[in-house]
Parts: sequence; C-alpha cells; structure tokens
Amino acid sequence: MPVAEVARQMLDYYPRELNVDRDLFVACIEACYDCADSCTQCADDCLAEENVQELTTCVRLNLDCSDICVATGRVVGRQTGFDANVAGAIVRACIAACRSCADECDIHAAHGMEHCRVCAEECRRCEQACEELLPAIGG
Amino acid sequence: MPVAEVARQMLDYYPRELNVDRDLFVACIEACYDCADSCTQCADDCLAEENVQELTTCVRLNLDCSDICVATGRVVGRQTGFDANVAGAIVRACIAACRSCADECDIHAAHGMEHCRVCAEECRRCEQACEELLPAIGG
Amino acid sequence: MPVAEVARQMLDYYPRELNVDRDLFVACIEACYDCADSCTQCADDCLAEENVQELTTCVRLNLDCSDICVATGRVVGRQTGFDANVAGAIVRACIAACRSCADECDIHAAHGMEHCRVCAEECRRCEQACEELLPAIGG
Amino acid sequence: MPVAEVARQMLDYYPRELNVDRDLFVACIEACYDCADSCTQCADDCLAEENVQELTTCVRLNLDCSDICVATGRVVGRQTGFDANVAGAIVRACIAACRSCADECDIHAAHGMEHCRVCAEECRRCEQACEELLPAIGG
Repeated sequence: MPVAEVARQMLDYYPRELNVDRDLFVACIEACYDCADSCTQCADDCLAEENVQELTTCVRLNLDCSDICVATGRVVGRQTGFDANVAGAIVRACIAACRSCADECDIHAAHGMEHCRVCAEECRRCEQACEELLPAIGG
Repeated sequence: MPVAEVARQMLDYYPRELNVDRDLFVACIEACYDCADSCTQCADDCLAEENVQELTTCVRLNLDCSDICVATGRVVGRQTGFDANVAGAIVRACIAACRSCADECDIHAAHGMEHCRVCAEECRRCEQACEELLPAIGG
Repeated sequence: MPVAEVARQMLDYYPRELNVDRDLFVACIEACYDCADSCTQCADDCLAEENVQELTTCVRLNLDCSDICVATGRVVGRQTGFDANVAGAIVRACIAACRSCADECDIHAAHGMEHCRVCAEECRRCEQACEELLPAIGG
Repeated sequence: MPVAEVARQMLDYYPRELNVDRDLFVACIEACYDCADSCTQCADDCLAEENVQELTTCVRLNLDCSDICVATGRVVGRQTGFDANVAGAIVRACIAACRSCADECDIHAAHGMEHCRVCAEECRRCEQACEELLPAIGG
C-alpha cells in the first residue's frame, strides 16, 4: 500500500472520535514522505554531478527539507494529544523548507537537471498540501 | 507522485552509470517509507486505546521500527559512495525491526485491533522488500 | 567529547569565512540533541508507568518534541547555503514543541514524576537556547 | 545537562526494575548523539570545501552514519518492551556505519582536513561504545 492508503486506514481505525478532515491529513502525510524521499535522492544525485561545487546550496536545502518533512509527516500523523501550536509551527516550517528547496531546484532544473525538476515539483506539492492543512489545524 | 514513482525517477536521473536492479531498490525505498508511517500511526492509535497499558510493547516496537525504517529508506536511497557493509547492516536491522513489530502487532490483530493488522501487513511487506534487496547489495 | 565540544570544533574548522556568533549556534545545537534524548527517554519512562493511560498526551508531545529537536539540531548545524527563512521557521517550531512538552511534563512532575521534571527542565533549556539564537539568524 | 547526564537520570527514574549495566547504555546513547552531530556537521564542512568533488563519498557516509546514529541512540534509549534482536541489529548497523565513515574521514584527515580528523575520532568512539554494549544486550 502506498503511504496515502496506509495513512487513511490508520486514521479510519483510530479508536477515539475524530472530527477532522481526513483528506487534508492524508494528503499532507503522503506529501511529506514523498518529499522526504525526493530531497534525499536529489541530494544524492547532486553529489554525483560533475559540477557538484555549484550544487552545494541545493544539497543543503535538500537535507534541511528532508529532515523537516520527516518530522512534519510524523507530527501530522499523530492524533492523540494533538497540539495546534506544535502542529501549526512544524507545518509552517515545512512550507518554508519546501519553498526554499523548490526555488533552488528550479534554478538547476532550468539548466537541464532533471532530478532537480522532479524534486521541485514534489516540494511544491508538499508546500501546497501543508498550506491546505494549515487552516484545518488552526494554524 | 507516490514514493515508488519518485524513487524510480530519481534513480533514472542519477547522473553516473548505475548497474543495479532498480526495481529492488525502488520497492525497498517505498516499503521503508510506507512502514515508517504505518508504525508512527499504529503507535498513535495504540496510545488512544483504552487498554493502552497492554500495548506498551507494541508502541515501543512501532517507534523502533519507524526510526529504523526512516534510516533504511534514506541509506538505500543513496547511490553515491555506496558502501555494501553499511547498507547490508541497516537493511538487516530493518528486517529485524519489521519482524519483531509484525509479530507483536499480530498478537493484537488477533484480538480485533485493526490498526495492528494493517501495520503487521506493512511490516511484513517491508521485511520482504528488504530480504529481496539484500543479495543484490552483497549483504 | 560532548555535543557542545563537537559542535564548536566543527564550526571552528568550517572552511569558509563564518561571521556568526558561534556560542549561540553551539548552545542551540547541544540543547536540541540533549532535549531529543530527554524526550525519547521520557516517552519510554511514561510507557513503563502503571498509570500510562493518564500520560498519553505526554508521550505524544515527547515524540513530537524529539522529532522536531533532531530536525532543528541538524538544520542549525549546517552553515553551507544557510537559509534564514528555513532556519527561523524550524527554530520557531522547536520553541513551540519544547514549550508544549515542558508544560505537559510540569503537570506530571508536580505529581512526583521525576523523569517529567528532568524532561521539562531540558525542554525549557532548549526553548531558551532557540529563543536566543533566533535574532542572530534574522528569525 | 549534556546527553550523558540526561540519559543517566532518565534511566535512574525508569519506573520498573532495570537489571542492566547503566554505564554501557549511557555511554552508547551519548556517543550516538555526539556522532550524529559530528557527521551532520562534517558533511556540511565537506560541502564548503573547494575540493568538494573529491569528498562526495565522505559526505554520503557522513549522512548514512548520522541517520543510523540517531536511530541507534533512540532504540538504545528505550527500555520498555526491549527486544534484543532489534537492538542488536541496529547496534551492529551503527558499528558498520561508524567504521566506514571513520575509515573514509581518516583518508581526508591525512591530507589536513581537520573536521574529518575530529569526525573520525567521534566515529571510532561511537563504534567502541556500541561494541561494548553489544554483549550486554545479547547481541
């Protein structure tokens, strides 16, 4: 099962009453894990490029974005003892990381780096899923 | 894009020659992220159960498995400077974590805990994807 | 060497010019790793308590805080391609997580839970180190 | 409080009987977090070097080692529902990661890279703490 289906079933089997828009949570959780992998592998692809010296800012933002996406996917995946301040703050950090990483990847995508093009798309998608979840969690 | 598709494209755009069975890597990367989420959310579902006191071993193994799956998904996702000793050892740790977590979840699934049933399935699937990758990386 | 000394030496050997207040970075990096461990172990101690059912919110906030502290310690530990928006946002998320976790731990510390007392202290210390770093990174 | 002191207090306040050699656990937990930070910052220092192209294997092993050290520090920090197979396997993975990363860092330390010299020392120290814990957890 892909992450989206796992996340949905886990919410469906949550044992307490759950008055949340599950679609928004599932979309955000999935996007976070997708983007975490995309950024880990884009950093690795950048390291393998001949002009890696011009890609060090991209590697760094990839690493930041991957770390923050993993933390966000986990926090958003938890419902017990939900804390709107914590969830809102990490989702906003994820938006910032995805935006900066996508902006940097776009520069290199324009010069033909296909892994940066794919990664920028995943970052934008994750940024959007986070933006859409934010009002639902009072962020 | 789900993790599997992200992982495949990132391998396809890897800038150096890559003589690996991409299907095995993609399957393992995807299974690791799926299982990481499954275990994070199963721990959360367990915490919300009335009989949480009987589920503390399950929560603990969920947390271990999630942490190890994230590390494994990242290590397996990297190709630059690939080290067979490191990759083999973390994949074996992932197999051990998935097996123990699935065994524990199975006990509670037999008593009607649906989130544990789903989580056990994801753990078994991740264990298998790791087992299948192991010979390909000389593990 | 403890984390603080590792972090300082790594900044001292950073190969480019570095016009930052190293004390603030070192203090924040160390506090993040200390607090990540404190929260991981407090969650584990809570799981072992007879009244774990009353501690599930504490476990959850421990897990969130640990995940966010690890991400923050890593982001703050990187200087190459430093991005003030990303760093500021994750440091603010860390402040929110530490504050919520400390508030929850304080409740249980008042009822004699010594691990919650220690954890609350580490969370407050990490919150403060993050607050002090924030203006220095333009946050 | 440094990680070692946090880890010790959290074990001291563990609410169930604990028949383990606490010194070995504390030393391993501390070494894992120290090494996680050392590797994160060594990767960052490498990215900032003019000859980063010759350091890409080092960056990769730093990233692997940091990811595996965080997972190991967390697993070893948990006592509830302790599973010797899982703990043994992740500690062995940590030994493999620390050894490979130290070997690679040593090469660059011999050419004057001081951050690699420090990182190699932290990796060796973590490898040793893991080796010493292994028999105590039946690994």
